[in-house]
Amino acid sequence: MKAAIYAGTFDPITLGHVDLVERAARLFDRLVIAVAVHSRKAVLFEVEERVAMVREVSKMFSNVEVESFDGLLVKYAHEKGIHVVVRGIRAFSDFEFEFQMALTNRKLAPDIETIFLMPNEDYSYVSSSTVREVAQMGGDTGNFVAKSVQKALEIKLKKGGSK
Amino acid sequence: MKAAIYAGTFDPITLGHVDLVERAARLFDRLVIAVAVHSRKAVLFEVEERVAMVREVSKMFSNVEVESFDGLLVKYAHEKGIHVVVRGIRAFSDFEFEFQMALTNRKLAPDIETIFLMPNEDYSYVSSSTVREVAQMGGDTGNFVAKSVQKALEIKLKKGGSK
Amino acid sequence: MKAAIYAGTFDPITLGHVDLVERAARLFDRLVIAVAVHSRKAVLFEVEERVAMVREVSKMFSNVEVESFDGLLVKYAHEKGIHVVVRGIRAFSDFEFEFQMALTNRKLAPDIETIFLMPNEDYSYVSSSTVREVAQMGGDTGNFVAKSVQKALEIKLKKGGSK
Amino acid sequence: MKAAIYAGTFDPITLGHVDLVERAARLFDRLVIAVAVHSRKAVLFEVEERVAMVREVSKMFSNVEVESFDGLLVKYAHEKGIHVVVRGIRAFSDFEFEFQMALTNRKLAPDIETIFLMPNEDYSYVSSSTVREVAQMGGDTGNFVAKSVQKALEIKLKKGGSK
Amino acid sequence: MKAAIYAGTFDPITLGHVDLVERAARLFDRLVIAVAVHSRKAVLFEVEERVAMVREVSKMFSNVEVESFDGLLVKYAHEKGIHVVVRGIRAFSDFEFEFQMALTNRKLAPDIETIFLMPNEDYSYVSSSTVREVAQMGGDTGNFVAKSVQKALEIKLKKGGSK
Amino acid sequence: MKAAIYAGTFDPITLGHVDLVERAARLFDRLVIAVAVHSRKAVLFEVEERVAMVREVSKMFSNVEVESFDGLLVKYAHEKGIHVVVRGIRAFSDFEFEFQMALTNRKLAPDIETIFLMPNEDYSYVSSSTVREVAQMGGDTGNFVAKSVQKALEIKLKKGGSK
Repeated sequence: MKAAIYAGTFDPITLGHVDLVERAARLFDRLVIAVAVHSRKAVLFEVEERVAMVREVSKMFSNVEVESFDGLLVKYAHEKGIHVVVRGIRAFSDFEFEFQMALTNRKLAPDIETIFLMPNEDYSYVSSSTVREVAQMGGDTGNFVAKSVQKALEIKLKKGGSK
Repeated sequence: MKAAIYAGTFDPITLGHVDLVERAARLFDRLVIAVAVHSRKAVLFEVEERVAMVREVSKMFSNVEVESFDGLLVKYAHEKGIHVVVRGIRAFSDFEFEFQMALTNRKLAPDIETIFLMPNEDYSYVSSSTVREVAQMGGDTGNFVAKSVQKALEIKLKKGGSK
Repeated sequence: MKAAIYAGTFDPITLGHVDLVERAARLFDRLVIAVAVHSRKAVLFEVEERVAMVREVSKMFSNVEVESFDGLLVKYAHEKGIHVVVRGIRAFSDFEFEFQMALTNRKLAPDIETIFLMPNEDYSYVSSSTVREVAQMGGDTGNFVAKSVQKALEIKLKKGGSK
Repeated sequence: MKAAIYAGTFDPITLGHVDLVERAARLFDRLVIAVAVHSRKAVLFEVEERVAMVREVSKMFSNVEVESFDGLLVKYAHEKGIHVVVRGIRAFSDFEFEFQMALTNRKLAPDIETIFLMPNEDYSYVSSSTVREVAQMGGDTGNFVAKSVQKALEIKLKKGGSK
Repeated sequence: MKAAIYAGTFDPITLGHVDLVERAARLFDRLVIAVAVHSRKAVLFEVEERVAMVREVSKMFSNVEVESFDGLLVKYAHEKGIHVVVRGIRAFSDFEFEFQMALTNRKLAPDIETIFLMPNEDYSYVSSSTVREVAQMGGDTGNFVAKSVQKALEIKLKKGGSK
Repeated sequence: MKAAIYAGTFDPITLGHVDLVERAARLFDRLVIAVAVHSRKAVLFEVEERVAMVREVSKMFSNVEVESFDGLLVKYAHEKGIHVVVRGIRAFSDFEFEFQMALTNRKLAPDIETIFLMPNEDYSYVSSSTVREVAQMGGDTGNFVAKSVQKALEIKLKKGGSK
C-alpha cells in the first residue's frame, strides 16, 4: 500500500492546500497530513487549532489522516514507515526553497522521495501569510480559505490573537 | 480624468521611486502617492517623516498628491474612486511578489487594475533597505537618494533612530 | 487623449491576448493593436489573416483599432504619435525577454513608455505556440482561443498550412 | 494498480533520465516510458534507435515498459488508461516550460495528474542537447550517458548522422 | 600580487564555503577570508567562534588569511588595499541578491570588482541556515560541514545556545 | 602569470562585451579573447570579420590577444595552457545557461575554473541578437556597439548579408 506525507504549518490551511490534498489523496492509497508544531515564524493559530482546521476541511477524503509532528520531517516519515513526501509548487520562489529542502532531505534520508504537485492555477497566488494579512486588515478571505477557516480567522482576530 | 495610485512604505523614498513617480505622472492626469502607515518590517522613519520626504522630492510634479493610508490598498483605492494601481518592477524577486499581490488585489477588487512600470536601469538595484543599510554603516547614499533624503538619514541616524 | 499600442505577432490571437486587450481598452481612450508583419519564427497565418482574426475578436471594443506594422515598433509608435506601449507578462520567461525589449526600446526612443499588464490567471499559460501545437496534434483548442480563431485553425490545418 | 507515464524525446537518454526512471519505478507499480516520435527540433537518432537505447538502459527495472508514441501526450495516456504523468525538473528554465505544459495538459485532460521529481543533483545540468554537442565536438560523454549510449553516439557521428 | 577578499557571516562555515575557499585560493596569490562581525539576522556563533572555525577548516591553504571585519565591505577592502571580492553563487535566489549587492558596491567603490564562482554542485543546496536548523532538530550535519564544525555545533547546542 | 580566456561568438561584439573585456583585462595578466568559429545559430558575420571587429575594439588593452577557435572550449584552454574561463552574466536567463555550461565544462575538465563577471548595468540588456535585429530594421545601434562595429553592420546589411 503506497502512502505519502503532506507536511506544512497550515497557519491556516488555504484552498490551495485543500486542492493539493485532493490531488494527493487520489494518487496515494493513504495520505498523512502532518501539521508542524513549530514554524520558522510566529504562528497565528496554535497547533491544535491548525490540526482541527485541517481535519475539518479534509474530512471528505476517506484515506486522509491528520496529525501534528515536531522535529525533522524525514525522522517523522521514518517513524511512520512512509517513503514519499508530497509538496506543492505554486511559483518560482517556492521552487528554489522546495528544491533546497528536498535535496537536504535526500541527503539526510536517501530512501525518502519528494514529489511535487501543481495546485489549481486559481490558487497559485494564495499563501497562508497573504490570508492572515488580508484578514488582519479586514478584507474578505472567502476566495482564499474554506468557510470554517474563515470563521476561525474572525474569532481569532476578534480576540486580538494576531501579532 | 484618469487617476492612479502609487503606494509603498518609502522608508525612505529612493531615486528609483522618484524615477517611477516621474514616469507615472506623465502617464496619468493625476497621481496619488500613498505612503503605508504600517509595514511588515520595522521602519526607520515615522509615517509623517516618510510623507514629508516624499512630498519634498515630488513637489516638482504638479499633478502629484502625497497621502498616508492604512489597511487594504484596494479599500483605500475604492474610497479615493481610483481604479489604477502603479507598481515598479526592478527585478525578478520583485516580479514574483508583485504578481502575487496584484492577483490577490484583483480577487479582492476586480475593478482595480495593477500596471507595472520599469524604472531607469540606473536605479534597478536600489532598494530602501539597501539605502538604510549603507547609511547605517556610514557609507555615502548620494547615488541612491535625493539630497533632502540623505540629510534626513544623517539626522535620523545621529539620533540613534535605527533598529 | 491618451492612446496606447499593443503589438504582437498574434499567430493566432489567444484568449489571453483578448483579456489583455480588454484591460488596456479600459485604461486608455484609444488602443491600437499592431500586428507585426514579420516574426522571428515562421508563422502559421499570413499577416492579413492574423489582422482579420484580431479584428473579429476585438470588435466589441469601440476604442480599439487593428493595423499591421513592419520594422521597429518605436518608429511605428512615433509615426502614430503614440507614447505608450502595452505588454502582457504571463510568466518569468516573458519577464526577462520583455525587460530586455523594453530597455532596448527606451534606449532607441526615451519618449515611449512601456507598461506591463497581467492577464487573467486562467490564461497565464496560454501561448500562441502552444495553441498551434495542440491544434496540429488534433487537440481541442476551445479553452485557449475564441470560436472564430478555432475555426480558422481548423481550415488552415486542413489545407496542410502548417510547417 | 497505480501506473505512470514518463514521456520524452530521449535524443539520447542521459544518466539524468535513467536516475528519474529509477525513482519513478520505485514510486509506481508500472512505469511506461513513452518515446515521442516527433520533436520540436531536428533529432539525431531515429525513434527506433531512441526506443532501443531507452530499453537497453532500463532493462534492469522489471516494472518498466518502453514504447513510442505520437500526437498529444494526454490522448496517449487516455488510450493506455494511465492517469499520472511523471516529469523531471532539473532547473528553473525547465520549471517554467514544465508548468506551462502541465497546465495545458490539465486543461485538455483534467483527469491526468502531472507529478514532478527531482533527479540526483549530479545530473542536474545534463541535457540531451549538451550530450549531442559534446559528442559532436569530440568530447568524452562518459559522465553524461550510459556506456551503450556512448557507443551509439560514436557510431552515429562516425556516419555523419548529425545535422 | 593579486589578492582577493571572500567575505561572509559563516555561521557556521559549510563544506560549500570550504569548496569556494579552495577554488579562490587557486585563482589568487592571496585570499583574505573576512568574517562579518554583524549580520542581518541573529547569529548562533560569536564572531570569535566563527573566525576560529573558518581558520580551522582553511588551515591547509597556505595563502589564506582569516580576519573579522565590521561595516561596509568596500571600506574594508580599501583599507586592505584589495580590489577583488569573491562571491559564491549556488542558485537563483543567490543570484539576484548577489547582483544587487555587487551593483551597490560598484556604485560605492568603482575600483573594486566582484567575481562570482560556482561551488561544487554537491554543495549547491547547503546553507548555514539549513545547517543550523538540521542541527537544532537533532539531524546529522556530517554531509554539510567539516568534522570540527560539527563538534562546535554539538557543544553550542547542548549549552542551549540556539534561538 | 595568471591568464584567462574570454570566449564567445561576438556576432558582433557589443559595448557590453567590451566592458567585460576591460574588467577581465584588469583582473588578469593576460587575456585571450577566443572567437568561436561555429555557433548554434546562423551568424551574420564570418569568423574573420568577427575577429577583426574584436581586435579593433580591444586594441587599447595591451594584455589582450584575439584568436578564433573551434571545438570544445576546454580543449582549446588546455592547448593554450590556460585554466580560467571568464564569462559575463547579464541576467537570469544567462545565469541558467551559463551554469549548465560551466558545470559541463567542469565535468569535462576539472582543472579549469569558470569565473563570472557582471557588466556595467548600462549594457545589461544589450545582446548581439538585439543589435542585429535593430540594425536590420534600420534602427540606430550607436548605443549598443562601437563606432567601427556600427560601420561594419551598415556595410554588411547593405550587401544583403542578413538572413
